[in-house]
Amino acid sequence: MTAPEHLALITHRPDGVAVGFQQVDATRPHISVLDAGPVRGDGIFETFSVANGNPQALERHLERFVASARALDLPEPSLAVWRDAIFAVSAHFADVDEAWLKTALTRGVEAGPSASGSAPEGTAPTGWVYATESPDFTAARTVGVRVVALDRGLRSDIAQSSPWLLAGAKTLSYAVNRAAQREAARRGADDVVFVSSDGLLLEGPTSTLIVRQGQRLITPPPSLGILAGTTQADLFEAAPLWGLTPAIEPMRASELASADAAWLVSSVRHAAPIRAVDGAPLTVDAELSERMNAFLRGRRA
Amino acid sequence: MTAPEHLALITHRPDGVAVGFQQVDATRPHISVLDAGPVRGDGIFETFSVANGNPQALERHLERFVASARALDLPEPSLAVWRDAIFAVSAHFADVDEAWLKTALTRGVEAGPSASGSAPEGTAPTGWVYATESPDFTAARTVGVRVVALDRGLRSDIAQSSPWLLAGAKTLSYAVNRAAQREAARRGADDVVFVSSDGLLLEGPTSTLIVRQGQRLITPPPSLGILAGTTQADLFEAAPLWGLTPAIEPMRASELASADAAWLVSSVRHAAPIRAVDGAPLTVDAELSERMNAFLRGRRA
Repeated sequence: MTAPEHLALITHRPDGVAVGFQQVDATRPHISVLDAGPVRGDGIFETFSVANGNPQALERHLERFVASARALDLPEPSLAVWRDAIFAVSAHFADVDEAWLKTALTRGVEAGPSASGSAPEGTAPTGWVYATESPDFTAARTVGVRVVALDRGLRSDIAQSSPWLLAGAKTLSYAVNRAAQREAARRGADDVVFVSSDGLLLEGPTSTLIVRQGQRLITPPPSLGILAGTTQADLFEAAPLWGLTPAIEPMRASELASADAAWLVSSVRHAAPIRAVDGAPLTVDAELSERMNAFLRGRRA
Repeated sequence: MTAPEHLALITHRPDGVAVGFQQVDATRPHISVLDAGPVRGDGIFETFSVANGNPQALERHLERFVASARALDLPEPSLAVWRDAIFAVSAHFADVDEAWLKTALTRGVEAGPSASGSAPEGTAPTGWVYATESPDFTAARTVGVRVVALDRGLRSDIAQSSPWLLAGAKTLSYAVNRAAQREAARRGADDVVFVSSDGLLLEGPTSTLIVRQGQRLITPPPSLGILAGTTQADLFEAAPLWGLTPAIEPMRASELASADAAWLVSSVRHAAPIRAVDGAPLTVDAELSERMNAFLRGRRA
């Protein structure tokens, strides 16, 4: 890793309350092999973009971080401490146009096999804030990405019926998301749009789907068991300025191929227009893509 | 952690080939916050029992470790190196009746957000072997465990239709398994039996299900998208000695409550008889449970 990088470790009391942070050498190992992060993917994260030292959509991300913690029965993140750590790490990137920053919180060191999944008493969670320069996403933002639609295997009512499946929580258990992206590469595509087992459009493995139909911008509702998108939320606030009407509603899988345009939007890559679905071309709305990305880059909170 | 513990880190070349191992201080951190283990749950593991220094079901576990690596497109584990590391770590527990040992392999340090999920060039995987003394599982092995049946949300044909869901691979993305165990605790139970969305019995979050119907021992087939059980395989080889006929076949969810007896079997806890299903008592076959556990404890390979 040659890019400058910065890391802060959150200090937790044994009862799970964060009391401070410490900036440490990011090139050194800081996680135990007994931590629930590496051994169980048992934790949560958020990824922020940082524009000239300013973490973007900060409060939206923190709100989702708290919601994810609740979904996993993790101690509630002490936001004052996390904010301080985020600002301290972000400050190193004041001269950098675009950096990315990750917050992560795990259940902490495990005591080994047990009949129940509860954390052993006295085990503090593990938390950190890491940031480094972003790569160049110009191609994805202008030329666009080719996607494949992949069945995520889950029904669209799973968030209601089976909360233990953690649909809608941003967990560290992303092996399936990574496997889906490798499957996309095998099929000659760049990214994935997940579809529910009952045929509804969901989200990308690390992004939110937005579809344009005429003057409407549509995204699927979080009630389908998907993440509430922070970047999508910011774009939907701006949409009326561009003469567009935002809508949150379910869409059939077939509505992607017949869309006037579509995007995968995410915190760091911003708005990537979809230029092909399962090998069939989709029109790239270059003007609106540019408008979206200029807006997203320009945010200072 | 007061129990004696031992850790070996596997040394990988950048091309992913394991070339050796090094025993290190297990109380120190050894994993980077950029590792795909903590940030993505993107890796695989196996948990072994170690009886007086002998890793049990060694070759079955290694075979499954290799199968999991293939499912995740990880470099093929160099088994000669892993075996050496496992024996070196296990040797510390020659005077301990029961220890548990974990092997883990992650995709290694990530280079940050990218459009595809492929590992950046030159990034070596991260691997380790950890062991410590087992807790006392006498109660689970004799009195038994209360289970709840929870919908895993996935159809039973998912392993065939959607390999990117990694059904049947033992990945580090276990947040859902942990959440299901917490849900069981909330319902006053000790453990979980997952059921497919189409109503077939699957497995526990960290165990294999075995049902006795008369003189037959039945376990669900791995083709339903579940792990091939190493402990179950050893028990099925022994079953004819006990006058029992092993069978691998799908069972409806209702067949658990009506079973003559049932067990959750796993490498470290061994055979835990199920004594209640969703609050309704199930007969514990104390004699067969004792026979199973004596057999499992006695294995020396």
